[in-house]
Amino acid sequence: MRTLEWDSTAKRLKMIDQRVLPSKLELISLDTYQSVYQSIKDMAVRGAPAIGVAAAFGIVLAAQQSQAGDVDMLRADLNQAAEVLGASRPTAVNLPWALKRMLGVAGHTYSSTADLRAALLDEAQRMADEDVALNRSMAAYGAELINDGDTIIHHCNTGALATVDWGTALGVIRMAHEQGKHIHVLVDETRPRLQGARLTAWELSQYGIPYDIISDNAAGYFLHTGQVNKVFYGGDRVARNGDVANKIGSYMLALAANANNVPVYSVVPTSTIDMELASGDEIPIEERDQDEVLNIQFQNQPATPKGASARNPAFDVTPHELISGIVTEKGVIYPPFEIHLAKIMQES
Amino acid sequence: MRTLEWDSTAKRLKMIDQRVLPSKLELISLDTYQSVYQSIKDMAVRGAPAIGVAAAFGIVLAAQQSQAGDVDMLRADLNQAAEVLGASRPTAVNLPWALKRMLGVAGHTYSSTADLRAALLDEAQRMADEDVALNRSMAAYGAELINDGDTIIHHCNTGALATVDWGTALGVIRMAHEQGKHIHVLVDETRPRLQGARLTAWELSQYGIPYDIISDNAAGYFLHTGQVNKVFYGGDRVARNGDVANKIGSYMLALAANANNVPVYSVVPTSTIDMELASGDEIPIEERDQDEVLNIQFQNQPATPKGASARNPAFDVTPHELISGIVTEKGVIYPPFEIHLAKIMQES
Repeated sequence: MRTLEWDSTAKRLKMIDQRVLPSKLELISLDTYQSVYQSIKDMAVRGAPAIGVAAAFGIVLAAQQSQAGDVDMLRADLNQAAEVLGASRPTAVNLPWALKRMLGVAGHTYSSTADLRAALLDEAQRMADEDVALNRSMAAYGAELINDGDTIIHHCNTGALATVDWGTALGVIRMAHEQGKHIHVLVDETRPRLQGARLTAWELSQYGIPYDIISDNAAGYFLHTGQVNKVFYGGDRVARNGDVANKIGSYMLALAANANNVPVYSVVPTSTIDMELASGDEIPIEERDQDEVLNIQFQNQPATPKGASARNPAFDVTPHELISGIVTEKGVIYPPFEIHLAKIMQES
Repeated sequence: MRTLEWDSTAKRLKMIDQRVLPSKLELISLDTYQSVYQSIKDMAVRGAPAIGVAAAFGIVLAAQQSQAGDVDMLRADLNQAAEVLGASRPTAVNLPWALKRMLGVAGHTYSSTADLRAALLDEAQRMADEDVALNRSMAAYGAELINDGDTIIHHCNTGALATVDWGTALGVIRMAHEQGKHIHVLVDETRPRLQGARLTAWELSQYGIPYDIISDNAAGYFLHTGQVNKVFYGGDRVARNGDVANKIGSYMLALAANANNVPVYSVVPTSTIDMELASGDEIPIEERDQDEVLNIQFQNQPATPKGASARNPAFDVTPHELISGIVTEKGVIYPPFEIHLAKIMQES
């Protein structure tokens, strides 16, 4: 199944609960936009493309919930729901992008609330299907960058679970694997939420791609000792100069790769590119609950003292100078990013 | 009490079991060199200076265990024990340094095995006392580098627990704190064994020094956003060109500090400096059991899939270009390290 999927019988949004993987593969079923808000905030669903589409279905649910008697009143309810959904997480631009697109559809002329509701469901379904198609297109372009025998460091989770299906950076790796290339993945465990250890390792097992989990700290060692050919990760928001906001730790990984002449690729759909921001300095960085850092057990023993405090920024920005290429559904963009991103975004 | 201490009544080596901190403060009592070997290997005791002194007491225990009827036979038993103890962990040079020093004492002339045994105990006790004195001396030199109001990133544990008492890099921070300087420490949790989260946070709580634990991944964010003044860590082996082998992750931290013009200091006694090695490339890097990476629980749930595999290098090398200064008991050494280390080592 897809990571998230509309259940047309029950008229609900079904999704894989990513908080309980890899121990359990459980589905949750959401029938209000408020529960979609909560699922994004709590990271039952995560990954920039996946939360964009989840929010789109949140608007479908808001339309379903609304008691509005006419199209204008329904639009007012949708605007209010979009505001709530948009506040769930600040960094990934796919969330406001998806909401804007849904509200754009709501802005057309409809003869009845039923027509508007139907149009919203169509649009959300289209976005879900498009996401899978875009991912396959990115994967095809990105797979050309991978050689038979490559060892690749991958950060966080960017697979089927981070998208509707297939994945971004992990989708590239999966495509290269399906093309018969022999790849070994060093999976950054990706503290604090361990999306690499929990989710990417689980996905790689399913696909039969050989891997080893490493502590994030170990990436520098493998890069410096010449054991790594490429670094791949996704992206949550790309500024127009090519700065990439991605999961915390991406910046240090990119620094270590650059210091050892290993190329770094960010794989993102163009919906992740935010041409309104001049640089990564303007990207809002979410700081999450300290419990994500503190509530960890090492060999089943508590790993932090009672009363300890923590800081927990969830993303960092990789300056564009450290990025070798940005893989999109329209092709691989190379520096100078400022010029090449503008060109590709004008084409859309 | 000290991290490790000779119990002269029971004729045993007592030490804090660092594997169960911060949940429990437990002592273990060792009466054979084989159990000292095991305690170093399993990391009941860790930290380059502490394992050096532990190994020295291991030789005392070997002398006590030996049934040798004369001094020559006792020496043969000691040589054999030194070989076992020396194989417990490969990276920290303090271990072979301490064993060499103990065997040097054994090489003198003794009229009886009892005299040799007594001389060995004296020497081990002297090394333990010296370690505390050296640490205080390093702390005094290092504290001059710290300004009132500094925020410092600290990697791994280098406190009282990593030494006989007081600490190396954490000893510097403690000294600055005792001098009345207001310091905030960002504690790298230091995966995989989480010595930062488990041990450094625990020590800082005891000393009343304000801190926040961060995932190792987050150091780059704090450095890039101008929230950090200095980086301090210890060292397990320093080559004569100033390359520093230290806990895995130190290299990436140093890269991120350098990219943001934040100075990086390694704090080590001169016993950690290995003038026989031209560069860090020659330092043996221990790869430990994959269970240290895999056996982790996030919010009390398993964080890795069943059957997952991992790689676990325990150290990496920070090239000397990334090190601003090496703090020793003889003062702070600045680049060019090749020249300044040679000078200071000749003086000893």
